[in-house]
Amino acid sequence: MAELTLLEAARAGQVLAPLAAAARAEGRDPEELRRHLAAGRLVVPANPRHTALRPLGIGEGLRTKVNANLGACDVSSSLEEELVKLECALEAGADAVMDLSTGGDLDAIRRAIVRRSPVPVGTVPVYQAAVEAVARGDSLADLSPDDLFAVLERKAADGVDFMTVHCGITREALRALRSAGRVTGVVSRGGALMLAWMAHRGEENPFYAQYDRLLDLARRYEVTLSLGDALRPGSLADAGDGLQMRELVLLGELAERARRAGVQVMIEGPGHVPLHQIQAQVAVAKSVCRGAPLYVLGPLVTDVAPGYDHITAAIGGALAAMAGADFLCYVTPAEHLGLPSAAEVREGVMAARIAAHAADVAKGVPGAAEWDRRLSEARQRLDWEAQAALALDPARVREFRARTQAAEKTPGTCTMCGRYCAMKLAAEAVGRAGG
Amino acid sequence: MAELTLLEAARAGQVLAPLAAAARAEGRDPEELRRHLAAGRLVVPANPRHTALRPLGIGEGLRTKVNANLGACDVSSSLEEELVKLECALEAGADAVMDLSTGGDLDAIRRAIVRRSPVPVGTVPVYQAAVEAVARGDSLADLSPDDLFAVLERKAADGVDFMTVHCGITREALRALRSAGRVTGVVSRGGALMLAWMAHRGEENPFYAQYDRLLDLARRYEVTLSLGDALRPGSLADAGDGLQMRELVLLGELAERARRAGVQVMIEGPGHVPLHQIQAQVAVAKSVCRGAPLYVLGPLVTDVAPGYDHITAAIGGALAAMAGADFLCYVTPAEHLGLPSAAEVREGVMAARIAAHAADVAKGVPGAAEWDRRLSEARQRLDWEAQAALALDPARVREFRARTQAAEKTPGTCTMCGRYCAMKLAAEAVGRAGG
Repeated sequence: MAELTLLEAARAGQVLAPLAAAARAEGRDPEELRRHLAAGRLVVPANPRHTALRPLGIGEGLRTKVNANLGACDVSSSLEEELVKLECALEAGADAVMDLSTGGDLDAIRRAIVRRSPVPVGTVPVYQAAVEAVARGDSLADLSPDDLFAVLERKAADGVDFMTVHCGITREALRALRSAGRVTGVVSRGGALMLAWMAHRGEENPFYAQYDRLLDLARRYEVTLSLGDALRPGSLADAGDGLQMRELVLLGELAERARRAGVQVMIEGPGHVPLHQIQAQVAVAKSVCRGAPLYVLGPLVTDVAPGYDHITAAIGGALAAMAGADFLCYVTPAEHLGLPSAAEVREGVMAARIAAHAADVAKGVPGAAEWDRRLSEARQRLDWEAQAALALDPARVREFRARTQAAEKTPGTCTMCGRYCAMKLAAEAVGRAGG
Repeated sequence: MAELTLLEAARAGQVLAPLAAAARAEGRDPEELRRHLAAGRLVVPANPRHTALRPLGIGEGLRTKVNANLGACDVSSSLEEELVKLECALEAGADAVMDLSTGGDLDAIRRAIVRRSPVPVGTVPVYQAAVEAVARGDSLADLSPDDLFAVLERKAADGVDFMTVHCGITREALRALRSAGRVTGVVSRGGALMLAWMAHRGEENPFYAQYDRLLDLARRYEVTLSLGDALRPGSLADAGDGLQMRELVLLGELAERARRAGVQVMIEGPGHVPLHQIQAQVAVAKSVCRGAPLYVLGPLVTDVAPGYDHITAAIGGALAAMAGADFLCYVTPAEHLGLPSAAEVREGVMAARIAAHAADVAKGVPGAAEWDRRLSEARQRLDWEAQAALALDPARVREFRARTQAAEKTPGTCTMCGRYCAMKLAAEAVGRAGG
């Protein structure tokens, strides 16, 4: 019999090395993580072939994690540019990266990213399948199910830790879409590719029809499945509709089958969701999928702010994470408009980390509130260097301070409040009143 | 007898011109606004001497409004720079501005802002009182209560529409502060100035002790009072403590006295508040102050992100507004670090408008969700010009698109997804399956 997977071992009471490392990384009790992992409420995406990996956990009770998407496309980018973006995402504090390349030498880019990345690496294999088919003058629909599974296996063999597979979109959904009256039909690229495949071939989604084969592959390579929400709402108007909820129910069933097969599984979530629906959507996803880690793509709380979607996503992400989402996919200011520059990758990671941390304070994740307290103590002491060192982005704080100091007429005056520093004035007043 | 104030007239069943204009501005029923104004749940800050004003309402049932702070200080800025920032804030869509200048020719700056601003203008008069005292070689404490009231009257006579007055911080609070164990004592500059005044003179806060005189002045000039929260938390650790809540209770009493005197009144709110406390804090502020419009300063949901506090405030502001806050004070990326540049003023207004609009969708403000739907319909049609025109910031969308198009190898390809546009693919698939 094959070796136990992380999930099978956890169920058997064993803490394998990646799980132990994940517990260590957050200063947590390995036994607590083992229990959550065994129950499917926590995953440790750790493909043994990803040798540079420092494993981390995603799920119940842990710090909320942030993913940054990388990826060359047929319009722009190169291997070198993607590696710059990888460095940029890591430096900004991303907990995981996904390589979503659809252009350039896909295998070379992915292998380079896996080789260099200490954080878990994810992909959406159907992108590469489509790109390769088109490069041969075919279309995705010319690929057989065997061809599709071959692409998945190639990626797994390269050390990819988690894969988004759109196995919840079926021929029934294709029919339902016609009369659904959605404003923005399907906005998941992987989902749209699967729809196109089904429509052209008149066959069922192979990742659904041959789901056991998918599980077998994931089990053999210890790949964590991320069940993609192909029917996620792409506009506030479509949020929470029957299409989305039907797919979610199906993903819940598939998640259960994955766990039974010893395969770790996450659920991908929306999308564009109005503020007042977020808590309910997270609660439903958690109940339907029996506590599986929830990986949200935003959610974006308005459609009207292209150019600022890192902010619309930070609002939604904070609320979602407070409600129980475990993993936030970053959104950059370039979302809906183009591919992000390296600076925008950084901005996106920072915005998502703010959302994640604000939620961690709310959820009572150990150590979260203490970070805020320490920074505020430095602020009250007017200790600028300690504030910078404790800040989410020390470089940015130092940059602002340098600008401020250059503008100061009187050295030592704080430009934040000029001569009238509330904290100084108040401290003196309280001291005087007490004396 | 003097003319009726807006509030007195509303109680008498009359819709005066500013209230009618405010209703028209949002396409709402004047009678509905009159009822809310009469009950103190809505204000229309409109000093008759502010002739450039286009009145707007703040409160129950209306669109959430956004304020941008302007203000020269002793370290930097000039009248010209402040007018550039005013234009920038207005162009970005600020609904109101506050002139918080503490440097330069304060009267000249304020008068120029009032003269040019079509939106309500607010100030914090005690700043100017302190600055003028220091300029004469004195300190704020050398000013008598009469001197302080004279500054307020000068501003009212200049056409200021609303004034922040820290009348809820008293000698009792000064004593309580000594043993409160706060991480960041007092972070309200106006509050700290009042504390300093009380500590030096050993007297009670004149805006509290002579509150009827303050109401009389506000009544005569039709100035809306914004009761400042001098003891707002300046760090997550201090949020919701007894000091903050005691001041809030006092503000509730003072708000009731204002309404009885025919004076419109808003309540200022926190501050730094962890995500999980925001809803409760807003609910308590609303109940204690009997539905008075709530003007929140953030709230910032973490202390650790200086350089990105427009984002921490957008998260908190969205949640607060969804819970019932009516007016968001913007926060710029420069918060805690220095004064904002014109570009940062713009960034701050946009972030706050995103929060306000996301909350308006959640609250069901008429027309809010429709805006999102129209933009998403344009997105589904791949109509880039309509998307830009409908966007919160059309200029930014066009700037991103220009960059994207310059990078395109194949004209007409959308760099958002390269060749693989989910919306196109899905629309084709659904069409094919149906055909």
